[in-house]
Amino acid sequence: MRHLGAELAAIRRGEVVIRLPFRPELTQQHGFFHAGGTASIADSAGGYAGYTLFPEDSSVLTVEFKLNLINPARGEWLEAVGRVVKPGRTLTICQLDVWGVGEARVHVATGLQTLICMHGRPDQGAKD
Amino acid sequence: MRHLGAELAAIRRGEVVIRLPFRPELTQQHGFFHAGGTASIADSAGGYAGYTLFPEDSSVLTVEFKLNLINPARGEWLEAVGRVVKPGRTLTICQLDVWGVGEARVHVATGLQTLICMHGRPDQGAKD
Amino acid sequence: MRHLGAELAAIRRGEVVIRLPFRPELTQQHGFFHAGGTASIADSAGGYAGYTLFPEDSSVLTVEFKLNLINPARGEWLEAVGRVVKPGRTLTICQLDVWGVGEARVHVATGLQTLICMHGRPDQGAKD
Amino acid sequence: MRHLGAELAAIRRGEVVIRLPFRPELTQQHGFFHAGGTASIADSAGGYAGYTLFPEDSSVLTVEFKLNLINPARGEWLEAVGRVVKPGRTLTICQLDVWGVGEARVHVATGLQTLICMHGRPDQGAKD
Repeated sequence: MRHLGAELAAIRRGEVVIRLPFRPELTQQHGFFHAGGTASIADSAGGYAGYTLFPEDSSVLTVEFKLNLINPARGEWLEAVGRVVKPGRTLTICQLDVWGVGEARVHVATGLQTLICMHGRPDQGAKD
Repeated sequence: MRHLGAELAAIRRGEVVIRLPFRPELTQQHGFFHAGGTASIADSAGGYAGYTLFPEDSSVLTVEFKLNLINPARGEWLEAVGRVVKPGRTLTICQLDVWGVGEARVHVATGLQTLICMHGRPDQGAKD
Repeated sequence: MRHLGAELAAIRRGEVVIRLPFRPELTQQHGFFHAGGTASIADSAGGYAGYTLFPEDSSVLTVEFKLNLINPARGEWLEAVGRVVKPGRTLTICQLDVWGVGEARVHVATGLQTLICMHGRPDQGAKD
Repeated sequence: MRHLGAELAAIRRGEVVIRLPFRPELTQQHGFFHAGGTASIADSAGGYAGYTLFPEDSSVLTVEFKLNLINPARGEWLEAVGRVVKPGRTLTICQLDVWGVGEARVHVATGLQTLICMHGRPDQGAKD
């Protein structure tokens, strides 16, 4: 996330927002954010959202995620919202949404993610 | 891709390999490649693989992709293989696989991707 | 749908609800609805939801869908809600949710679906 | 599966084939198998494939699956092949492929599935 220049914009129990400001090196040749950047912050927002509900001595891993890219990813920044749909002791399911924010606020991507809670392995840390 | 430091390792009709060398800033705190980097090169490998089968005056967009992260992404480099499963005039489906290559060769991720061919829009270019 | 015994419970522009009453032959050995039945009505609800926004002389096909099964599918009936997230001339993206309805209303499954509109092919008809 | 008229055609460790003969009530109005039937046998083939690798006193549940429908599902029967890509103590990942078999053998659908092994709960049984 640091490498991309992304930052945590909001943390609530079961919901996390990550912001990625526009940077020329993250774009395709026509000025849109690359799908990889969009997927990265979506995955991280969901991972953190799940982690807010996990016990202290645990860590989080992404089992899988699926993302539909529904509009060009442009704007001054991208905003990824990860929200827990179904918490669980072992598996947690999150909804992922990414918005492009500039003059307008456009829905850029929507997805689903399955997380696994690794109990008793705090050392693996949260996703960064 | 340039931003990540990834490079095209092989291009055949309907199959593309992208390599991402290990760099400390692409890793999580325990030395694994971040899921975002894994997803980025997987998506790009599939996008290019589809593009090898598209007509000249067209461009490629990812409609959606799904990725299962099946082993920790470690090694000296990651290798993403995108392979067209079903070519089509409008939609093309690719299989995505990512390997971590070092002393061993480990299957890191497997996925599926739906691409759309934008006919007559060469200016949007291929995914980069 | 007829074969399963499912019925259309509500149709609005961009949103369709399908109901599947409990029948012993649709269940696994412990009285839960089988995942196949859950997936069938989820896919149909999304397909119809997209179709409500399509032009008259068109038909709808499912390109792909992904479903997370988040709770046991039990109750007196299942209710699948398909809702268009992003309409489009060629591709339409829907959110799929299935609820088990009995004494309680439980969120059984959540998913995403990509539809394609086949223009000028009314004869293929809507999904049934 | 019984309700659909599907049958187990092959069982190997980590790979299962399920066959679904053509029946008028499983088709859409133009004689293709319905997506729900395709998804049902794909999910079951994967579930059984995982189950062949599970310990005796366990059961299998589908966490999620994703299916791309790549060709019209026609033929004299459908054949779903579930193959374990990554076995695991808790989670197992399968590739799902469905073929329409008649005069030709056509690749109808391809997908991925995440299974969870419920240890010590044999009573939930395998998926049927």
